Order: sequence, then structure tokens, then C-alpha cells
Amino acid sequence: MKNQKDATWSPLFKEATSKDFQDFHECLDQDKRIALHDVAGSKVHAGMLARAGIISPDENHQIQGGLDQIAEEMRAGSFDWKTELEDVHTNVENRLTELVGPAGKKLHTARSRNDQVATDIRLYAREQLDLLALDLKVLINAFIDLAEKHADAIMPGFTHLQIAQPVTFGHHMMAYVEMFLRDLDRVEAARTRLNVSPLGAAALAGTGFPIDPGYSASELGFATSFANSLDAVSDRDYVIDICSAGAIIMGHLSRFSEEVILWCTPMFDFVEIGDQFCTGSSIMPQKRNPDLAELVRGKAARALGNLTFSASLMKSQPLAFNKDQQESKPPLTDTLETVRGAVRVTAQMIPSIIAKRDKMLSAAKLGYSTATDLADYLVRLGMSFRDAHHAVAAIVGLARDRALTTLSDLSLAEMQALAPLVRNDVFEILTVEGSVSSRNHKGGTAPCRVREAAQAARLNIA
Amino acid sequence: MKNQKDATWSPLFKEATSKDFQDFHECLDQDKRIALHDVAGSKVHAGMLARAGIISPDENHQIQGGLDQIAEEMRAGSFDWKTELEDVHTNVENRLTELVGPAGKKLHTARSRNDQVATDIRLYAREQLDLLALDLKVLINAFIDLAEKHADAIMPGFTHLQIAQPVTFGHHMMAYVEMFLRDLDRVEAARTRLNVSPLGAAALAGTGFPIDPGYSASELGFATSFANSLDAVSDRDYVIDICSAGAIIMGHLSRFSEEVILWCTPMFDFVEIGDQFCTGSSIMPQKRNPDLAELVRGKAARALGNLTFSASLMKSQPLAFNKDQQESKPPLTDTLETVRGAVRVTAQMIPSIIAKRDKMLSAAKLGYSTATDLADYLVRLGMSFRDAHHAVAAIVGLARDRALTTLSDLSLAEMQALAPLVRNDVFEILTVEGSVSSRNHKGGTAPCRVREAAQAARLNIA
Amino acid sequence: MKNQKDATWSPLFKEATSKDFQDFHECLDQDKRIALHDVAGSKVHAGMLARAGIISPDENHQIQGGLDQIAEEMRAGSFDWKTELEDVHTNVENRLTELVGPAGKKLHTARSRNDQVATDIRLYAREQLDLLALDLKVLINAFIDLAEKHADAIMPGFTHLQIAQPVTFGHHMMAYVEMFLRDLDRVEAARTRLNVSPLGAAALAGTGFPIDPGYSASELGFATSFANSLDAVSDRDYVIDICSAGAIIMGHLSRFSEEVILWCTPMFDFVEIGDQFCTGSSIMPQKRNPDLAELVRGKAARALGNLTFSASLMKSQPLAFNKDQQESKPPLTDTLETVRGAVRVTAQMIPSIIAKRDKMLSAAKLGYSTATDLADYLVRLGMSFRDAHHAVAAIVGLARDRALTTLSDLSLAEMQALAPLVRNDVFEILTVEGSVSSRNHKGGTAPCRVREAAQAARLNIA
Amino acid sequence: MKNQKDATWSPLFKEATSKDFQDFHECLDQDKRIALHDVAGSKVHAGMLARAGIISPDENHQIQGGLDQIAEEMRAGSFDWKTELEDVHTNVENRLTELVGPAGKKLHTARSRNDQVATDIRLYAREQLDLLALDLKVLINAFIDLAEKHADAIMPGFTHLQIAQPVTFGHHMMAYVEMFLRDLDRVEAARTRLNVSPLGAAALAGTGFPIDPGYSASELGFATSFANSLDAVSDRDYVIDICSAGAIIMGHLSRFSEEVILWCTPMFDFVEIGDQFCTGSSIMPQKRNPDLAELVRGKAARALGNLTFSASLMKSQPLAFNKDQQESKPPLTDTLETVRGAVRVTAQMIPSIIAKRDKMLSAAKLGYSTATDLADYLVRLGMSFRDAHHAVAAIVGLARDRALTTLSDLSLAEMQALAPLVRNDVFEILTVEGSVSSRNHKGGTAPCRVREAAQAARLNIA
Repeated sequence: MKNQKDATWSPLFKEATSKDFQDFHECLDQDKRIALHDVAGSKVHAGMLARAGIISPDENHQIQGGLDQIAEEMRAGSFDWKTELEDVHTNVENRLTELVGPAGKKLHTARSRNDQVATDIRLYAREQLDLLALDLKVLINAFIDLAEKHADAIMPGFTHLQIAQPVTFGHHMMAYVEMFLRDLDRVEAARTRLNVSPLGAAALAGTGFPIDPGYSASELGFATSFANSLDAVSDRDYVIDICSAGAIIMGHLSRFSEEVILWCTPMFDFVEIGDQFCTGSSIMPQKRNPDLAELVRGKAARALGNLTFSASLMKSQPLAFNKDQQESKPPLTDTLETVRGAVRVTAQMIPSIIAKRDKMLSAAKLGYSTATDLADYLVRLGMSFRDAHHAVAAIVGLARDRALTTLSDLSLAEMQALAPLVRNDVFEILTVEGSVSSRNHKGGTAPCRVREAAQAARLNIA
Repeated sequence: MKNQKDATWSPLFKEATSKDFQDFHECLDQDKRIALHDVAGSKVHAGMLARAGIISPDENHQIQGGLDQIAEEMRAGSFDWKTELEDVHTNVENRLTELVGPAGKKLHTARSRNDQVATDIRLYAREQLDLLALDLKVLINAFIDLAEKHADAIMPGFTHLQIAQPVTFGHHMMAYVEMFLRDLDRVEAARTRLNVSPLGAAALAGTGFPIDPGYSASELGFATSFANSLDAVSDRDYVIDICSAGAIIMGHLSRFSEEVILWCTPMFDFVEIGDQFCTGSSIMPQKRNPDLAELVRGKAARALGNLTFSASLMKSQPLAFNKDQQESKPPLTDTLETVRGAVRVTAQMIPSIIAKRDKMLSAAKLGYSTATDLADYLVRLGMSFRDAHHAVAAIVGLARDRALTTLSDLSLAEMQALAPLVRNDVFEILTVEGSVSSRNHKGGTAPCRVREAAQAARLNIA
Repeated sequence: MKNQKDATWSPLFKEATSKDFQDFHECLDQDKRIALHDVAGSKVHAGMLARAGIISPDENHQIQGGLDQIAEEMRAGSFDWKTELEDVHTNVENRLTELVGPAGKKLHTARSRNDQVATDIRLYAREQLDLLALDLKVLINAFIDLAEKHADAIMPGFTHLQIAQPVTFGHHMMAYVEMFLRDLDRVEAARTRLNVSPLGAAALAGTGFPIDPGYSASELGFATSFANSLDAVSDRDYVIDICSAGAIIMGHLSRFSEEVILWCTPMFDFVEIGDQFCTGSSIMPQKRNPDLAELVRGKAARALGNLTFSASLMKSQPLAFNKDQQESKPPLTDTLETVRGAVRVTAQMIPSIIAKRDKMLSAAKLGYSTATDLADYLVRLGMSFRDAHHAVAAIVGLARDRALTTLSDLSLAEMQALAPLVRNDVFEILTVEGSVSSRNHKGGTAPCRVREAAQAARLNIA
Repeated sequence: MKNQKDATWSPLFKEATSKDFQDFHECLDQDKRIALHDVAGSKVHAGMLARAGIISPDENHQIQGGLDQIAEEMRAGSFDWKTELEDVHTNVENRLTELVGPAGKKLHTARSRNDQVATDIRLYAREQLDLLALDLKVLINAFIDLAEKHADAIMPGFTHLQIAQPVTFGHHMMAYVEMFLRDLDRVEAARTRLNVSPLGAAALAGTGFPIDPGYSASELGFATSFANSLDAVSDRDYVIDICSAGAIIMGHLSRFSEEVILWCTPMFDFVEIGDQFCTGSSIMPQKRNPDLAELVRGKAARALGNLTFSASLMKSQPLAFNKDQQESKPPLTDTLETVRGAVRVTAQMIPSIIAKRDKMLSAAKLGYSTATDLADYLVRLGMSFRDAHHAVAAIVGLARDRALTTLSDLSLAEMQALAPLVRNDVFEILTVEGSVSSRNHKGGTAPCRVREAAQAARLNIA
């Protein structure tokens, strides 16, 4: 650390830091996000020093008061950040010494900025992950609500974006619930893995003072304290874990966004999104664009960029701390802010979705969507599946050649010519309603199964 | 699926697949990795069909026999792969029908290639993760062995690649143990998250046959069956989870490799690596290059590429299955093979490491590495840490100006001139042995703590 | 290099290379791609050595003959690759010595595998880029053909996937021509930048032999020889350049693929793709999936993974050559093969596209697509654009509230109530035909401009 | 576009934009970077409208005046940015209408925000690339200066970070000059490729007004105007081009940074960096860390993240403009700012480098660095290179077994025992000075060649 104001502070440095380097180096914007955690960590550190007899009770008392005032100044926005003091840690120690005098100079005993910043970022990340978990639950609930509302609305199910089989809109929404439930697990796993206190690792080797790292860990709510001091100051795995979870969450949101965008085109016209989440055009007066969904989709690329950033940053770094690690903060904070923002706005948009059930139902009847049901019907009448598949393909070919919209438009005789087993009850088999109802095993698309799944998911996150 | 040999197979397709497209499309190399899992999944599926009365016991019996024979052919390398049959699934069904006749055509009842391939990949990935976990334990043990052997070998600890404080080589090795223990947790978390059976989801909506997905799941060792059929066929999260864990593991290996490479230069000369893991030069007769470590470092970039690949692949895909997902296999298999290979060769190299303890010890004395100990000494004599830091910096400045190698080369009087509290016992403080012994709290570098940590880690993975 | 067969070859190595390391290390699959270039480079190198008097004319003659035979063996598939000889370079030198005796041992004079492999990869990459440029031209021509065929077919133009304004299908195709013309430039720029010969840089410092690097460069078709030997052996920029160009090309193909996939859904139904480029389903007899387009879209992620791989590989590598660089080959070859494959199959698919002009035309009339034309009409009658935009938005609102499909369904009086300037000629303005014809400046969507652009593009690549 | 203040602005929108969405959406920070370019583009657009008779000369005059004032307000920092007006374009039009009344509402005739923002970003990027080219030239000059100063300073050349052959420090510096000369070419190629005006493409289809896109292009310094309107509004290739060039530049800087960091450790001790570019430690009084180099190395990961971000963003986007493209600005601006910052601070640091020539020279003599010279010597005496390589390896093995530092420490007889051709003049061959001088072909490490290369490079960028 270099005190710009007092070039004699460290007699080793005879020249002041280059102004351009200082700008290039500057990370106060990042540091402001961890500032209150820094103060909280310092309070616990001072308490530990006092318990261990390294500073006196009185000094601790003064430090606690000074730090409380600093936290208040930060919350009030009146804290005077000095960029020439490089980072939050030096700013706080400097201000503390202003406020309480000599005791302030004792705060940094038995620690280093290396373990301090590692502690701060973990506290920040843990808090944000907890908030993200709450955000995800709100999102999941929004999907469940929509799923229950439309548990029996029939829409075309797509594979390869071709109409495959009819499904229920509720079932489709519940697919996203499954994704975000897994994401909730990812967030919780990342939280558990990072919840280890590095405080006491000092610069890299621990310290010769009789510290109690377990006390500091426990006071800060960590599950345990570091097992290896070198690892404690150089580990940024949790940043990659979080960027990975964030990229996966954004990936899920991008899939939903893609579908919302498709469903909003006049060509699909399956849903309408609330005005609050759309924008118009500066030139085309008729436009109503699903802007929010597009922006979320775009920000999935941002999260992916952060993941690449964080993982390539740590590649090939020798132990222990290197300055490169300062750059682990931007992908972490940007990911958390991007993901939390995207989860929140999507959760807000979902209740504004109007499902156009009639449009979906009409579409579900296209694309010969019950051809599989017909093949299964033939199987129940004794054909092997492979032969039944073949026979139905021929029937579909006939309907297609004759430009019929659905297989029901063929006559019984026409079907029988290609699949002699077909009987008059075939027309019930060919309805989309029958198709979805028949898939009523666990995980299937039948409305009763959708309602069951919705209830189970709600309990899961309760 | 398109049968090249029999263009009438599906009457909908009037022209054969383009040869170039077929080549572009071909994934048999990938599929061979999952072939035995495919057979195992089919055996369970047939058993389930029989239990549910969808096929007869006799048909099941024939299918089981046919599949057993196919598995044997695969193991023996005699299975006749046909590229025109596109993938493993069609190859197996085709061969089965050759072997057992009509019953073979019934195997695909109540399932689709979509749920089938999803099942296969999960089985493959689960098996590989279990093997990777074992590989990681071997690696961790190799680090622990080396740590215990050199629990008291003193080396310079670096931050910013500048000498910071003395540490023990054992402590340094144990830092890697911590990383790989976290990675073991990542591998296990990825395994748990993927251990859900998609079998029964069929194409995307489930099936109208009275299947028992829970039975299939349990027979295949899955913890549970899918909760949503759309999600079951379109979820490739686990590929990203594994690529992320893989990139982090390779990141850790790249850090160790970087250190090995540094330590092997004549400039460091801290270790020597066994001949079996080095290579020479075609032109320079004297060269002995730490090739293995360099290659592992390079392959960390490969794992990162796979992570980007897998995550950007899934971005913005509408539900449910799309052909893009075929491309989820290459990053998965390449990551697992790269990571397992790198873990194994590194684990083999470690026992060949000869730590040059005398070289490390000499280096540990450079860089005024006990300056912090001197500052802490002054703190114990009553100075604030910040003032002590300042005073010691002045002492270091004096030693540097006089080109002295260590602070002990200064006289007591010289030190006292800059820090009057210094007494004659200061010279004990300035030894690297004293420095490492003093850091004897949990997680510190003292030899006793290293041995303790090694023992704890060994228990952890027992 | 380590000769497995003869552990005494380099007396420095007392133990054989670990078998697992050898497998991990193995790159013969990659090397086979550059094998003929390696031979070509060696032939030129030997010629240069002879010209410089470093080897005798007779030795050169023997070497040329031996290398010719090796090339023939490689082309015939009879070359006996030995994995224990590590790489192509050693395999070739070894075989050469078998064939011609002592002269073979002189080939490696004044060079190293470092400059040799750098030369080989550049020759390989240059050849592949030239082929890719040809592939791109075929693709561009396919787009131009389709554009000319449908220069006047009207379709909806989309922004935000909402119908924006009518455009011509030909204009839409020509947008892709522009992208791939830029890509052609990228390919050519990458080629120019890599076309520098590293031969003669030897291990890293050049050589003490009186070599003529300019001669070698010129014989191998390089524009010039290396300006700095350290750079020559450690530069892999061209790999990143190619991976970047490849990722951009695949990005363009992924955009087109996405559109093809959309246009093939029954919801859009704008085009039909030839059977040869579609696949069916194992379970759903009616399916006809635009598989090729999906696979190309998926492989765009693969190219992106390779870009990340190649760029993170080179990060932070000290000069000059490090073994990590062996890993620069896989992303290079995989990118070139993936991109060339994707360009070729897409170029083959395009002529099979049947544009459903009636479906496109009907869709172009949806979404009030001529609202901008109405606003522009009001501007020509004297309103400011912003006011006209506002007025037309109100007219659109009225049509939407009344569920009218097009603005023409409103009466003149209704329009006048919201925009008094509107006259009876407004109905001509509201036609999609009028809209596209009016955009007839350079780069606009009018059919005449499309034909003009098509002609210009054809000349451009002639 | 949605006017928050006046919800009736577009009667289609009945509800105000969600506040959270507005925040999520907000891009004014990005837009401020392009604000002056936006005004410049609007001035040219208005001029074009007037020339084409679409607005009157008087209206144009008013608009020019209004825009000039807005530019002044922006430069002075007094422009009143309104976040509820979404972006720079609406802010400017709104303020213009405040300033000049009805004429302001005519500015948006015959254009859209889609072509407008595309124009702005290209102007911004072009300007930044021009500045980056200048920055790179300063950097290159700094390397040339250092190379010339130390053209004859001998240091060990490394491959695999093992000592390979002696090189000159000047030659090593000139390797970086070659890299950055290529980067200059990349910057110029990116500039050329983006220098096409999109103005007049309007929303996506061009416009029905009689515009003159060529005039706008020429006035804004573009080489030409767009050839296809759909492409014009949806092309963000240039962002990827710039991110790619940026990642490569940062990759080169990361390699140099890695070397600086290595050279600054006490283990290497080859160079010293000025105080202005180093930092100390909060705990270790003796530390002097090469912080700038580490930070630059870390920021190479940032540039790589931006490349992944920009390329995955554009993947699979259907034509033409989608909101996702708003996210193309952050990776572009962050890359340009990061790269320019890193280039500048590195250029400033270089003149502060003190090369410790004696330390380098001593190191160059380690590692048997002239073993290749010995082999070449034997070749000149008649051995084949492969046999000479073998013989020298044996000599090195002897020296190593006897723990000799250099080959010269062996006696003539000892060498002759292993290589009978060796004569008394061998000891001259074994000097590092002789070795570097002998590599005096173009691109070689001999001091005269370094000076020649330096001069050529200086001319190149003059």
C-alpha cells in the first residue's frame, strides 16, 4: 500500500505512484459494495484481538466506536472516500485513526489486506446469494401460479421447434420450475462452499500472535475457519462457482425469454405481455416489443462472459495472493447484480402474461401432433412399435399430400388402407385432449399431474 | 431417424440424407462412449415394459438375451457399427431385431431417443464422475504424502511472486489438498444433481402407456425419476456443471503446474521432477523440460473452452429437445477425459518430485522475509502495528541500500537507531525457523500444524 | 524428445517416459493433419542447407528422395506411425534415416522442432483458409441465387421478432451475403497475417549456420521470413485470429439457421427444406426436423469454445516456446473443420429451400406493417415526423382494439378522425407492395435494388 | 420508445414501464460515451434531409444550432440527462425540441434509432481505435528504445522456462515489438471493416424518402454506405472484431507482464521497475510488488470475458435488430478502455525498467546454454547433427553428474573422450558472447541484427 499524501510513510518508496497507474488500478467502485462488510469484519477482528489480549479492552472499545461511526457515515453517504488511499481497507483504517487516534493503528495487528479482502468478499457474496435465493423463490412461485392457472390449457409441445405432441401450458411452465429449483440448489451449494472464514491467514502464512480464528469465524457466521492459510488468501473458487451458477440461471432465463419472444410474434401469438415490460419504436408506430425478454436473453451472454473472465483469471496463478485477484471482484459483482436483476424483472413480468388459450389450442391441432398416439393405439392393438411407427408415417404422408390439417380429416377407410387394425374408436385417440390426459404418470403432461407437481414444488420452497 | 438402406422406411422422406450432411452429423465416436450404458438402459426399459404388461415375459426374455449379446459384441469389439444408422440407439435396435426378430421392434415402445440419450449420458457421466472422485483421492493422497515428508522444510512463501514470509513446503502442498478437497465436493455435488432418471419422458410429454418411471430409475441406480417430462429431455445443466467443475479442477492443476515449472528453472531450482515426466529437445542436447506440467497447464485452457462451449450451446434454446443438444456430448466427454487424464498424470508425477530443501531454505532467507516478524516483535514490545510497520520499512530500506542479504546482517545499533525498542533478542526473531514455528494456530504454517492438517485430510477422504 | 526404443539415445534421461504421460501427451492425430506440410517444409529446408553448403548436393539428393517416398507412403496410408516417437517430426526423421541412412541424420541441422512445427501449422492453416475462402464463395453464390430468384417475394421484416415493415425475401438473403463477404475479408486478413515463415528461427535464437531464411520462405510461398526468432517460435496469434474469424462465421450461420428453424415451424411456414437435410423421429411418425440447421447452430457454440480455448491458452505464457502450445492445434483444426463443414452443408441446403411466397406475403400484411409508411405519408403532407408517429400510433391502437388485421380495414373517416391530413390515396400507401417498392435507394429493400446488389456481389467474388 | 412523463405519447401503451425494468434496461452510462457522436450524426442527417428537400433550409438551420448547443452542454457537463427517456437518442431529440420547437420533431424523419445507434457506435469505435493505434505506437517505441539500449546485453533465452540458449535482452524486447506491430495491423483491419455508414437503413428496410446515404457516409468520414439495410442495423461483427483484437493485445501484454513479474523475483532478479509502478504491503514492511504488471495480466482475463460475451451475444439472433444488441456496448467500451489503459500504463512503465545486465549475464551461463553451439561445432567438423546432438548430451550428462556449472569446466580430454572431434578451440565456442554473435542472420539474436530490426520497426510506425 502506498500513502500518496505522505511519501515518507514507507521509506522504501521514493517516488509517488504514477497517476495513470493509480487510475488503472482504482477499485473503489467495487470496494464500496464490500465496505460495510469490511467494517463488520474489522469489528470482529478487534474483538478477537482484545479477547486474546493483543490489544487492550479500552483500545477495542475505541475501535468499536470508531468503526460504528464509519459504518454510519457509509450508510449516510457521508464517508469521505479518498481514491489516493487505493482501497476500502486503507480508507477505513485511515479514517479510524482520524477518529480514535493511536488505537486505530493497532487494528491491523495480526492480519493483512489479503485475508481481510478475502473475508469481505465472502461476506458480500454470501449475503447476495441469500438474497438471490429469495429472488429465485419469488420467480418459482410466479411460474407455479401461472402453471396452476393453466394446468389444463393445451398447447403444441415442440421438439426441433416442430410440433411434436400436445402438452399443457401448465406443464410447460413447470419445466421452468424444475430448472430454477436446481438453480436454487446451485446457489445453496455455492453458499455452503464459500462459508469458510479466511480471517487470521494474514498475508499468507498465518501469524505469530495468539489469535483465535475460530472465534472470528463464528462471530461472522462462517461455518468454520480456514484449514490452510496459503489457500485462504489465494482461493477465488467461489467466484467461479457463483459465475457458473449465474451463467446457468441466465441460461434458463434465456430459454424462457426466447420462448416468450416467439410466443409474442404474430406468427405464434400464444401470449401477451404487459405494457410495463414492452417498449415501442421511435419510427414504427405500431411496434410493441418484448424488450424485457430480449434484454434478459442478451444478458445471458454477459453472465457467460463473466464466467470466462473469472475462470481464465485464476488459471496458472502461482500461490499465494497476486494482484490479478483484484479483478475477481468485477465478474462477481456484475454476475450477482445481473442475475438478481434478471430474476426479479422476469418474476414481475410473469404475472402480466396473458395466455391466449384458444390460439394455443388451435396450434396444438396442427402438425399431426397426435400421430404418436395413433402409433401407440396400434401397439395396443398388437403391432410392434416399430411397425406401427412405419404405418402411421404412411398415414401422415397421405394427409400431408392431401394438404389436410389433421389426421382426423382422413376417413376411417383411408386409414385402414394403410393400417388395417384401425377401428372406429380411432378418432377419440386423435384428439389433443385425449392425448394430454393419457400422459398421467408422474412427470407427465396430464393436468392432474401438473397440479400435483405444482403443489409439490410449492412445498419444496416453502 | 432416417434409414439410409431402406428409403421407404419412413414414407415421409422421399430423398436420402445428403452424404455431406451425414458426415457433418455423425456422432458415433461420441456414441461409442455411451454404448454400454445404452444397452443397460434398454434392458431396464424392457423389464419395465414387461412388468407393466406392455410386452410379454417371453418378448422381454428374448430382448434381454439379444441385448446381452450386443453388449458382449461391444466389449469384444465385434459389434458392427453402421454409420448410416446415425446413432447408437438405432444401431442397437437394428441389431437387436436382427438377433431376436419381431420382439426387437417392440423395445422402443413408450420411449423416444430423447429420453433414451438423456438417460445414457447421465449414466456415462455418473460413472465417470465416480472414477474422477477416485482419481482425485489418489491425487490428494500424493500431495499429503509429500506434505508430510516435508512438513518442516522451509521455503520462501510468495505473494505477488515476491518473497513474503517463510513457509513450510508441507504447508504449501497442503494448500493444494484444500483445493482438491473442494473439487471433490464439486464432483459429488454434480453427481447428486444429475442423478435423476429421464426414462419415461419419451419424446417430451411422457407417454400414454402405463409405465413405471420409478422402477426404471431405481433399477438404474438413480435417486429418483423426472418430475417434468419437458425438462427431462431438454435439461443439459449437468453438462455445464461438470464442465465448470472440470475447469476449476484444471485451474487448480494449472496453478500447481505453474509452480512446478517455476521451481524447475535453474533460477529457482527448488525441485527436480522424474525423468519419466520430462522431455528433451531435438536441437538442444542439454534440455530437460517439465513437459507434463506445461501440458497440464495448457489443457486448463481446453477445459475452459469446453465450459464456454457447453454454456453458450444451451443459451436461448426453446423447449424441449433441439438437435443442438447433440453437441453437448463433445465438451462433456472431452472435459471428463482431459480432467481425469490430467489428475492421473499429475498424481503420478508428484511422488517423483525431489524437494531440494537446502535451495529452498537459502531462498527463504532472501527478500527480508522475516520483516513482518520484526514488526510483530515491536508490537509485542508496545508499538502500534502501523508504527511498527513504518519503522521496519526503514530498517529494510537501510539493509537494501547497503545491499545486505538479510536483516540479521545489520548490527543491533543500526536497528535501534530506527527502532529504539529493539533489543538483543531480535536476532532470534529474524530466523526463518522461528518465523514458521511461531505460526502455530490452526491453518498456520508451523510444521506441527502441517502434520495435523495432513492427518485430518487423510481421514476426510478415507 | 525421448526415444522410447532406445533409452540411451539421450544419456541425460535414465528412465523411460511414463506410459500414462505418453498417452496424455500424444498428438499424432493432430499431427497427421500437418504431416505432408512437414515433409514439404523439410524438403525446402534440405534444399536451403545444400545451397548454403551445410550439407552436400548428394546428401540433399538422398534426403529429397527419401522425403518424396515418405510423402507417398503417407498419401497411400502405408506410413508406419509410431506413437512412441511422440510426434510427426521425429517419425519423419526416423523413417528418413531408415530410408537413406546417415544423410537423414543431417536434416535437423540448423533447425529445431520449434520452428519446424510453427512452419507446418502455418502451411496447414494457409491451405485450409484458401479452401475455406472457396467454400465461402460457394455459399455466397447460393445466397445470391436464392436472392435473385425471390428478389420481389414479399415477407414480413422483423425487429424484436415483431413484424416491423415488409421486406423482400431476396433482400433478406442479401443481408447474409454481406455478412459472408465480410467473413471472406476476415479469412483473407488472417491468411495475410500468418503468411510469414518461421523456418530458421531454430529453437528460439536463430542459428550459427549461414542459413538463408528468405530462400526457405520464398520456396514455401511465404510473403517473407520472420523478423524475430523468439517471436517466430512463440507466436500463435494466427490461431486466435482463425478461431475468431471462425466464431464469427459460425455466428452468421447460426443466425441463418435460427431463421430457417423459425421459418420451418408450422407457425411461420415460410419455407420448406429438402428431405436430404431433415431427419425424422424414432417415436413421432409425423416429424420432419430441420436437423441440419439446428446442428449448425449448435456448432456455433463449439467454435466459440475453441476461441476461448485458444486465447486463454496463450495468456501469460513467458517467451519463447512452451509445451502448452501443443494445445494450440486442437482448437485450430477443430475450428477449420467445423467451419468448413458447416459452410459446405449450408451451401448445399440453400438450393433445396422452397420459399412459400404466398405464406410470406400473407404474413407481411399482419402486424400493421405499413404503419411507418402511413407516418411518412403524413410527413409528406406536412406533419413533423414525431407528430405523425404519434397520430399513426393512435390509428394502430384503434385497429388493434377493433381486432382488425390491417390498417386498410379502417375507413377513411376513422383514420381522418385521428389524422385529419389523411386523404383517399392513403390506401395505396398501406399496401406492402408499395412499401417495398418505395425503399429504392442503395441498400434498400426494393426488388430492383436487390437485383442490383446481387449482381454487385457476384462481381465482387468473381 | 416510451415517454414516461407523458404516458399518452404512444397511445398503444396504457401502462408505464415498470420501474425495475427501467433500471435493468438503463444504458445511459454507456450512452454518454457515444453522445457527442450521436449529435454529430444527427447534424449530418439533418443536413442530408435539407439537401434532399425533406426539411427546409430554415428547419435545418434551427436544428444545427440546437444540436451545437446540445454538444456544448454535453462538453460542459450541463446537459440534463433524463433516465426516464431511456437512451441518448431520445434525450437529444427531446432537448432539441425544447430548444428549437417543431423543427426538432422533424429530425427523426427517414431514420430510426436502429440505424442511428449503429452509426454512433461505429463513430465511437473508429475514434477509439485511432487512439488505440497511437497508444500502441507509443508502446512500440518504448520497447524499441529499451531494445536499442540493451542490444548487446546477454540474458538466458528460455524455452519451457528452462535455459535454452543465450539471447540478447534487446532481441527479447524486439519480440514484443513484432507482436504489437501485428496488433497495430489488427486494429487497422478492424477499423477498415467497420468504416461503413449504416445511416439511412432506418428501422431495417431503408426508407421511402429520397435520401442520399452516400452523402451522410461521406460527411461522417465513412468509406462507403451500407449495401443492405437489414444487415446495416443488425451487424455487430465489428464489436467482436474489436474484442478479439483487444483480447490478443491483452494476451501479448499478459505475456510481457508475466516475464516482468518473473524477472522481478529475487530468484531471477533480472530487472527493477520504478517505484511509481509498484506497491507495498499493509503487513509486510519489506514488500515491493510489481503490481502494475500483475493487474495488466489479470485484465487480460477481462478482455477474454468480453470476447466471449460479445460473440455469444450475437449467436442465433434472427434478423434484424433485437434488443439483445444493446448489450453489445458494454463489452465494446470495456474492452477499448481496458486495452487503452493497459497499453498506456505499460508504455509508461517500460522506461522505468532497469536491466541488471550482470545478473542476466551470469544466468545466461547456467543451464549449459551453449550445448547447441557445441553440437553445431561438431557438425562443422563433419558429424551429422543427430550424432552430434547425442554426443553433446553425453558431455552435458557428465557435467551434470559432476555438478559443474558450465561445460567449460570440463577438460578438453574429458570432452574428447565423448566426442573425439573436439579440439582446443572448443572453449571459444562455449562462450555466451560467441553464441549470440554467431546468430547473425535476419531475425537472429546477434546485437547487430537487433539494432537493424529496431531501426526497421521504427521506420515501420513512423
